[in-house]
Amino acid sequence: MTREVTELRFAYLSGGVGGARLARGLCAVLPPERLSIIVNTADDFRHWGLWISPDLDSVMYSVAGLSDEARGWGLLDDRFDTLAAMARLEPEFPDEAPSWFQLGGRDLATHLTRSAALTSGQRLTEITLRLGRALGLRHALLPMSDEPAPSFIHTKTGERLTFQDWLVKRRAADPVARVELSRPMPSAEVLQALSQADVVLFAPSNPYVSLDPILALPGVRERVAARPVVAVSPILAGAAVKGPLAEMIRDLEGVAASPRAVCEHYGGLVSACLVEPEDAAQLAEERATRYLAGDTRIPGLSEATRLARQVIEAAERLCEGAL
Amino acid sequence: MTREVTELRFAYLSGGVGGARLARGLCAVLPPERLSIIVNTADDFRHWGLWISPDLDSVMYSVAGLSDEARGWGLLDDRFDTLAAMARLEPEFPDEAPSWFQLGGRDLATHLTRSAALTSGQRLTEITLRLGRALGLRHALLPMSDEPAPSFIHTKTGERLTFQDWLVKRRAADPVARVELSRPMPSAEVLQALSQADVVLFAPSNPYVSLDPILALPGVRERVAARPVVAVSPILAGAAVKGPLAEMIRDLEGVAASPRAVCEHYGGLVSACLVEPEDAAQLAEERATRYLAGDTRIPGLSEATRLARQVIEAAERLCEGAL
Repeated sequence: MTREVTELRFAYLSGGVGGARLARGLCAVLPPERLSIIVNTADDFRHWGLWISPDLDSVMYSVAGLSDEARGWGLLDDRFDTLAAMARLEPEFPDEAPSWFQLGGRDLATHLTRSAALTSGQRLTEITLRLGRALGLRHALLPMSDEPAPSFIHTKTGERLTFQDWLVKRRAADPVARVELSRPMPSAEVLQALSQADVVLFAPSNPYVSLDPILALPGVRERVAARPVVAVSPILAGAAVKGPLAEMIRDLEGVAASPRAVCEHYGGLVSACLVEPEDAAQLAEERATRYLAGDTRIPGLSEATRLARQVIEAAERLCEGAL
Repeated sequence: MTREVTELRFAYLSGGVGGARLARGLCAVLPPERLSIIVNTADDFRHWGLWISPDLDSVMYSVAGLSDEARGWGLLDDRFDTLAAMARLEPEFPDEAPSWFQLGGRDLATHLTRSAALTSGQRLTEITLRLGRALGLRHALLPMSDEPAPSFIHTKTGERLTFQDWLVKRRAADPVARVELSRPMPSAEVLQALSQADVVLFAPSNPYVSLDPILALPGVRERVAARPVVAVSPILAGAAVKGPLAEMIRDLEGVAASPRAVCEHYGGLVSACLVEPEDAAQLAEERATRYLAGDTRIPGLSEATRLARQVIEAAERLCEGAL
């Protein structure tokens, strides 16, 4: 970089997929000392005896430039030999060798290493920082907590499902009545990153299952509320790029999916939200949150980098009182 | 089979590699009710957080027709994507992601499933039988014990090494002063298989680190001693087909490697031992053990099946008093 992009320090709250893509753009634009990435771990679960942290890995692989952008999860060109062998064992071991969740061969190295390190008593935060270093990350990637923090989905038919059972095993087909969040303590690193941040960024992630779990942790919401927040809308022209968010907004809020429905869900936290130009035009009259037209479709690194610059510019204008 | 091969019941004590190959031949010749395979687990160890049972897997894969005969371990055509990714993580996680022990992708499914089932409280015996069924085995494959039973190698320089550290990490380069055996209880299934056997078979395995650990378990040696034992020599013309046995005989017994050195180590247990014809000619005068010329080089299934028939024939002659 020939000059400092910004004087501000950012804490970026993220889920997987869309959040992971923008994380890559932010890391391309911001030096490590200006950005901490705080990642949802409410989707984490045990599978094949291993501890899986899907959102952490999505962000880590994306920032490392290793993720399969087209598929939206896992590593590029990963193969599934172990999964195929598991499917052969599954009839005898339905509990130990389930094949409904797909783990690739190189991806498995991450899960094996993380699980072994957790078993040896290391904190998820330390382990995540070491995994990041091993894959060449320069920025701090922080799990929201060192404790397990599983969310549960309560369906409209009265079932209580683990998140992955609902999302992957049942393909998010069950309408959601309520999301039950865990509220463990956030890590010291997360609280420090928030306290040191000038601006908090909300990823284009699912508010109910990706960012709410972070905001629900003791001490987080008040730190976020004390700072300007720039969000990127996960809803573009009435739909989510990927995942069940549009249906969740309908089921949980009783309204159609829109950037405004997302921001209102955050209850006044969001100062400015980047949205697609056609959404911005519709929301021009809003006062509580400023809706700014941006290029929020980010299929690749160049688009993610451009959006990262727009987010930073919005943050600077907010801090200068120009918004 | 058009007629019963034999009326006898066999308990076959086995390590990996050579023992695994002959196991395949025995399973091809004997119906399941006439053969129990009792496998050494003293080499088992934890790696990548998983419980690895190398000899059990060598036998299981060999009997299932899935093993890489040329390499001598692992699954045919297995790939090593996870291992390659582990090597990338290893600098940050030397304890959790060591790459010195090679595990293939399909092989990993076995270790993951076994480890998860052990963690859930199942016995290794049950798990092994289920793994065998999943891979199409018809014969009972029994780990020698449900308890961990690690051996340690005491080197001539006074070090105490785990077996895999000595064998794989250090490539068996350290001369051996003594093998320290664990002596957990054998499983009920193992004691029953021995009690029901008419004849015990010793695989062409390493006596010190593969069969001694089985024989050392409470109740095993006396059951074996009460029955005729047919062994297959792991030493062919002064050398082992694979592994460090010849050097161990030299270091531990102070004699050159030979079938006689192996049988004498077993202290009178072995009634008859199949050896290569040139070895048989040299040992014709022996009385304590009868040395029978056989075709003990078994690179593939047809050779293993032929040797299995020779072993069964020797057992029948023994039981008829014709030897």
